Amino acid sequence: MTTSAVIDDFYAIVPAGGAGTRLWPLSRQASPKFLHDLTGSGRSLLQATVDRLTPVAGADGVVLVTGQRHVAACREQLPAMAQDAVLAEPLPRDSMAAIGLAAAVLEQRHGDVVVGSFAADQVVSGQSAFEQAVREAVVAARAGYVVTIGIAASRPSVAFGYVRSGEPLALDAAPSALHARGFTEKPDAATAREYLASGEYRWNAGIFVARTSVLLGHLAQQRPQLHAGLREIAAAWDTPARDEVMDRVWPGLEKIAIDHAVAEPVAAAGGVAVVPGTFGWDDVGDFNSLAALLPSVDDAGDKVVGVAGDVVRIETGGNVVVPASGRVVTLLGVDDLVVVDTPDALLVTTRSRAQQVKSVVDAVRERGLDDLL
Amino acid sequence: MTTSAVIDDFYAIVPAGGAGTRLWPLSRQASPKFLHDLTGSGRSLLQATVDRLTPVAGADGVVLVTGQRHVAACREQLPAMAQDAVLAEPLPRDSMAAIGLAAAVLEQRHGDVVVGSFAADQVVSGQSAFEQAVREAVVAARAGYVVTIGIAASRPSVAFGYVRSGEPLALDAAPSALHARGFTEKPDAATAREYLASGEYRWNAGIFVARTSVLLGHLAQQRPQLHAGLREIAAAWDTPARDEVMDRVWPGLEKIAIDHAVAEPVAAAGGVAVVPGTFGWDDVGDFNSLAALLPSVDDAGDKVVGVAGDVVRIETGGNVVVPASGRVVTLLGVDDLVVVDTPDALLVTTRSRAQQVKSVVDAVRERGLDDLL
Repeated sequence: MTTSAVIDDFYAIVPAGGAGTRLWPLSRQASPKFLHDLTGSGRSLLQATVDRLTPVAGADGVVLVTGQRHVAACREQLPAMAQDAVLAEPLPRDSMAAIGLAAAVLEQRHGDVVVGSFAADQVVSGQSAFEQAVREAVVAARAGYVVTIGIAASRPSVAFGYVRSGEPLALDAAPSALHARGFTEKPDAATAREYLASGEYRWNAGIFVARTSVLLGHLAQQRPQLHAGLREIAAAWDTPARDEVMDRVWPGLEKIAIDHAVAEPVAAAGGVAVVPGTFGWDDVGDFNSLAALLPSVDDAGDKVVGVAGDVVRIETGGNVVVPASGRVVTLLGVDDLVVVDTPDALLVTTRSRAQQVKSVVDAVRERGLDDLL
Repeated sequence: MTTSAVIDDFYAIVPAGGAGTRLWPLSRQASPKFLHDLTGSGRSLLQATVDRLTPVAGADGVVLVTGQRHVAACREQLPAMAQDAVLAEPLPRDSMAAIGLAAAVLEQRHGDVVVGSFAADQVVSGQSAFEQAVREAVVAARAGYVVTIGIAASRPSVAFGYVRSGEPLALDAAPSALHARGFTEKPDAATAREYLASGEYRWNAGIFVARTSVLLGHLAQQRPQLHAGLREIAAAWDTPARDEVMDRVWPGLEKIAIDHAVAEPVAAAGGVAVVPGTFGWDDVGDFNSLAALLPSVDDAGDKVVGVAGDVVRIETGGNVVVPASGRVVTLLGVDDLVVVDTPDALLVTTRSRAQQVKSVVDAVRERGLDDLL
């Protein structure tokens, strides 16, 4: 890789938040999804995200936004990351505040640069296709758009939102970039099939690329109070006043997703572009979608997250097994189960119930077993 | 209870052996089934067996035969048992050697008394019906029979052997005792239904009651070498020569069940009687039969062996859960599973596969995970 591959004046923002509740008991509040190596790659989702962005943003061009309680674990996983590249949130204020804070701090430090947000808990395969999409997105961002990367839908998923594309932007250096006609919530199955057939709909991966002036300008228009608060914090960030201002302003910021605060209203006004992404992508929302990303152990189709040797399987098929306690997990004559074995909690459910694991977490909370959350 | 309830010159032999492989990973070689409180009674199967026998045999009338490695655990569970009431086997030689040794030692100590063998790993409910059956069996034994207690079959089980009854013995003090026409192996389902319909067949619980002279006399006829070996050991048992003789003779004894060695051939010759037992009985052979002995936690029909509060269940039914690790076990949307959670091994299977758990143990052994056996 040559240094010329790094994009000038481009910074990657990595929001690392969310407990990954549907991946409980593997993912916890204290040890959330992004800190885990779910795919057996040897790197956590967070590490893989930074690895993926470094070639385009440079080693000093990646900024992490995470909760204060996760800062130490993040730094341990990312020892090369600069001290001032980690922005700590005292409490979560959703994605607009997280990304907006990073954008405002980066503008404060570097002027009107292009930033892109890339969640820390997604799985991407196909590095060159990913980089190509980011490069085109940066070109479109420089032309004044808020740019999302729309993932080529490989199935009529009801678990993702979609972005609908329109006419080409007709930018020479971003030949595949299209106007975005709008965003949709998660569709029902019939609608998802229509989306897939139309060819106009792509998965919304929550990747947004824009000039800081454009992103923050839209925010000022859509959410003036939130914008003002973030500007005030950013002005104080690299000064001794940071903690005082943060403690005073941050807790009062509006909790809103960047999708609702900026992407949707701006798309309605014609200000959003979409670059089709042809790389493999998944948000690994639950154990069933995790299973889809893993190779089978053998012809039986069982998937193991961890050391396959820790699992003894007899006449089984299609199970997702997470041996994360060091104990031996033995399965006899069971199919399509999810078995997650951790040192203090065990989950047994079915793959078809994987989306409902949150209800187990709720029940554990109701029992007052807060140590397990 | 009055002391007159203790039967004169009667001794109960409790063979405590067998790993209970189909109850793995709860039951282990190092911590077999009989040491566990499977029914939530607060007493292990071994303790419950001794509790049940003490009213008829007296506190000093119960003799335990177990493997050397289990002696310490047995004594811990039975602190009131006399030192010489525990006979240790250096290695297992099946039920004829275990019961024969105890019978020979008891005859050496007490003369020609009546002995009865009662396995340490069975579950009985209905103490007075049990005692009544034992009293009748002792009467029939004094008349010279080898007496078994045949359990009233409540279902056409294919997991048990059966004993077939004939004409009444016509003993005044044992009015329900019958001639036994023979024993059968575990039948197929159709045969089991015929057995149940006939009214002549009862479950063979492996309970045998006989005068020592009768039992050992039959053994001398059927298996003279085994008989001679046991007599030699018994003669030395309460002398300083015990260890020398035991170490020399015991390992060479024939491994054979008392059913094959004595009960079947003697029944064919008309020397066996059967006393119908109307108490509840089960040998708790696997997790499915254990489930049948337990009350459901609630209307969903889940059964918990252990602390029900350690299990979180959402939309479940018919599961057998053994939370034996101290961890919280959570189940979502699963039915009729068996989930056994121990500190070093987890088993997930179905109730219909409960009889096949041995195959898991075999696989664990093949992996060389001997600590888990």
